Amino acid sequence: MKNQYISRYFLLLTCCLIIIKSTVSAQNNILVFQSDFGLKDAAVSAMKGVAMGVSPDLKLYDVTHEIPAYNIWEASYRLVQTAPYWPAGTVFVSVVDPGVGTSRKSVVLLTKSGHYFVTPDNGTLTLVAEQLGIQEVREIDEVNNRRKNSNESYTFHGRDVYAFTGARLASKAMTFDKVGPKLPEKVVTIPYQKAAFGNGKVKGGIPILDIQYGNVWTNIDKEVFNKLGFKVGDDIKVSIQNNQKNVYEGVVKYVNTFGDVKEGEDVGYFNSLLFFSLGINMGSFSEKYKVYSGGEWSIELSK
Amino acid sequence: MKNQYISRYFLLLTCCLIIIKSTVSAQNNILVFQSDFGLKDAAVSAMKGVAMGVSPDLKLYDVTHEIPAYNIWEASYRLVQTAPYWPAGTVFVSVVDPGVGTSRKSVVLLTKSGHYFVTPDNGTLTLVAEQLGIQEVREIDEVNNRRKNSNESYTFHGRDVYAFTGARLASKAMTFDKVGPKLPEKVVTIPYQKAAFGNGKVKGGIPILDIQYGNVWTNIDKEVFNKLGFKVGDDIKVSIQNNQKNVYEGVVKYVNTFGDVKEGEDVGYFNSLLFFSLGINMGSFSEKYKVYSGGEWSIELSK
Amino acid sequence: MKNQYISRYFLLLTCCLIIIKSTVSAQNNILVFQSDFGLKDAAVSAMKGVAMGVSPDLKLYDVTHEIPAYNIWEASYRLVQTAPYWPAGTVFVSVVDPGVGTSRKSVVLLTKSGHYFVTPDNGTLTLVAEQLGIQEVREIDEVNNRRKNSNESYTFHGRDVYAFTGARLASKAMTFDKVGPKLPEKVVTIPYQKAAFGNGKVKGGIPILDIQYGNVWTNIDKEVFNKLGFKVGDDIKVSIQNNQKNVYEGVVKYVNTFGDVKEGEDVGYFNSLLFFSLGINMGSFSEKYKVYSGGEWSIELSK
Repeated sequence: MKNQYISRYFLLLTCCLIIIKSTVSAQNNILVFQSDFGLKDAAVSAMKGVAMGVSPDLKLYDVTHEIPAYNIWEASYRLVQTAPYWPAGTVFVSVVDPGVGTSRKSVVLLTKSGHYFVTPDNGTLTLVAEQLGIQEVREIDEVNNRRKNSNESYTFHGRDVYAFTGARLASKAMTFDKVGPKLPEKVVTIPYQKAAFGNGKVKGGIPILDIQYGNVWTNIDKEVFNKLGFKVGDDIKVSIQNNQKNVYEGVVKYVNTFGDVKEGEDVGYFNSLLFFSLGINMGSFSEKYKVYSGGEWSIELSK
Repeated sequence: MKNQYISRYFLLLTCCLIIIKSTVSAQNNILVFQSDFGLKDAAVSAMKGVAMGVSPDLKLYDVTHEIPAYNIWEASYRLVQTAPYWPAGTVFVSVVDPGVGTSRKSVVLLTKSGHYFVTPDNGTLTLVAEQLGIQEVREIDEVNNRRKNSNESYTFHGRDVYAFTGARLASKAMTFDKVGPKLPEKVVTIPYQKAAFGNGKVKGGIPILDIQYGNVWTNIDKEVFNKLGFKVGDDIKVSIQNNQKNVYEGVVKYVNTFGDVKEGEDVGYFNSLLFFSLGINMGSFSEKYKVYSGGEWSIELSK
Repeated sequence: MKNQYISRYFLLLTCCLIIIKSTVSAQNNILVFQSDFGLKDAAVSAMKGVAMGVSPDLKLYDVTHEIPAYNIWEASYRLVQTAPYWPAGTVFVSVVDPGVGTSRKSVVLLTKSGHYFVTPDNGTLTLVAEQLGIQEVREIDEVNNRRKNSNESYTFHGRDVYAFTGARLASKAMTFDKVGPKLPEKVVTIPYQKAAFGNGKVKGGIPILDIQYGNVWTNIDKEVFNKLGFKVGDDIKVSIQNNQKNVYEGVVKYVNTFGDVKEGEDVGYFNSLLFFSLGINMGSFSEKYKVYSGGEWSIELSK
């Protein structure tokens, strides 16, 4: 008799614990915004307000809102720079959308890494699709996945469709299959020059600058770089072209860290994403040599 | 006998659920900051620290901290641009306060939409009062609603009074009536030119620029605009004056979206807040034609 | 018999309440980031992603990420400007690290005020150590306190070591003693000129500008200032030197608030941190008189 009650107590206790657990884990859902809106007006804030209206338990963060206006390539690059560091299940909303109102599709990409990306399918997904893998792509059904009373506004998909859809997905108010119809497992991609070894040279592109410090980041990873057999401390011959025209030719020292050379000295190093990069200790390589980033820039390394 | 225990279990379970529910909903309270402090120093962070000291369960967000210094009109505009998208019960703290330390009142406005605004009553409330409606205004009792040990600091009301009061209100540490004495149902307002139709023309003001993209936003809504009988695709004659002096005269195409015209073409469209706006596809209308915003700017539309 | 069951119900209820309470208080832990990374790329976001991966219950905030690149003095100043306003137990992660990869130590400082600071020990702790007091300093054991699979990256200690360690500490995934070995109770400090009274003059330094408004903030507190016997409304003779060379000589009015003088008038006042400061009502003292901040600037006040 006593045991019977005790077992009931345990059942009840377990029951309470499960309820508590599910209440708490429902609050873990994370929504991360990116855009080219800047932070000077209230557009980002309006997107977050919509998300809080969907569920006040969401945790809202940002990649950046300083993507240069309409720069889809950089939107793609910033996403892949941060997404792998967030836990699986994180939902990203990226709104760099020069084609808003035209026929580009609004989609949600689920990557093999378990991250969700809510965005216009205009090239923004180029790098996350390639590096994190495509698990499933769904087109957003904009009739059902749209903030109430928002049909009159043509120009703010970010707030009315993307933030709303991302918030409903992240808060589990909606399962992934309710986003809309499944699409083929591919996304719109932007062509770019990949890193490659041949004829004793490594060639690559310059996808982005580390603008805060003026460093030049290439897309040459360690595996390709190592085919030249460099060791830390070696000199590296570098030439940089803009549309095939030479902009920089020089020799940099291969270092682990800027602290290994004197102030003002050019260095080659692997950045935090483990790509070969060029910098100046306490200076700006980009400004000094007028080297910038984008599809028209290329770089060659040799002994 | 068994039923009696079962009913007690259910009573107990219900009791637990209610406790869990109220714990969770007590965490939902949202506090949104706006200021002209910028993000380069630690002033915004100090306000958030004070709020976290009041209750770590608060959810802290921002409208913008890039309001141009002392620009009360823009503070008013940014509030009304975002507040309607946040759930009722959200508390906004806005600190653009050129008159700090003078006789302007510190108030909390509760709008008919259920939003709270904690701010100096210096014109900041102009547009939210007008568009969301005044439910109740209370003057902040600065003797009781002030961070401990803060009396010596005359110059940081934002941190010591507004953030503290907003946090206590948002976290339900204080009910609205404890803010201070009830005031008449009005706020200090900034005069501005409203949209109007007459003599075959629509006249209006230019309250703000969409600075990130260089678009010019008027205060002409669809109802007034429609009196001219325009359809999408029509040409609109536009003239813009600064203090009655013509700055721009031209014809723009009325479109749903920038994607409907070629790059570089001038367009008229309705922005995300559903006001008539001027832009250039992939360009800046404001920079090209030197058109800016504020009370001294006016615009005329005709066929 | 009945009482026995009732007492069991209460025991069980208490038990549930304790579980709920501890679940909720475990979510209170606050992590505040500062860096010189800027907000244009995804570096800050990657740090926050790492923290969310440690515990989604953390509350992530920022001091500023606009510290001028490599400016350790300003990093130190911003920390002490905000930390006292955050509740005890808050963990700050500050990454201004020109010596990354060199022999500077990575440490966690616990101040007597109960705040934690995770940072390279390169001078960043100068002012918090002095003003909040050193309780304990520990060197980060970078073998154990490092994000998994991050050993190959030499250049992003902020993400792989500091954010990770700060998140584990703030979320109580790790106790303070697990950070690493205890160090002597001192930190690396940057020398600077302190405020002092002598020969009828008060001398001091200019640690920082209030950049948003162009005000000049000295390190002269009320106690030292009061030795000159000024009352509000008095005129103060001010001279400012850069490397002993006079840059400004003038007379300012001592006011409680800018509202006490006309637009354009120079004033002396006590800022929100209660240090003597110079400003112009609706103008920029710094820009008008070319007065900036740093160790080479000094100021003298007299009757």
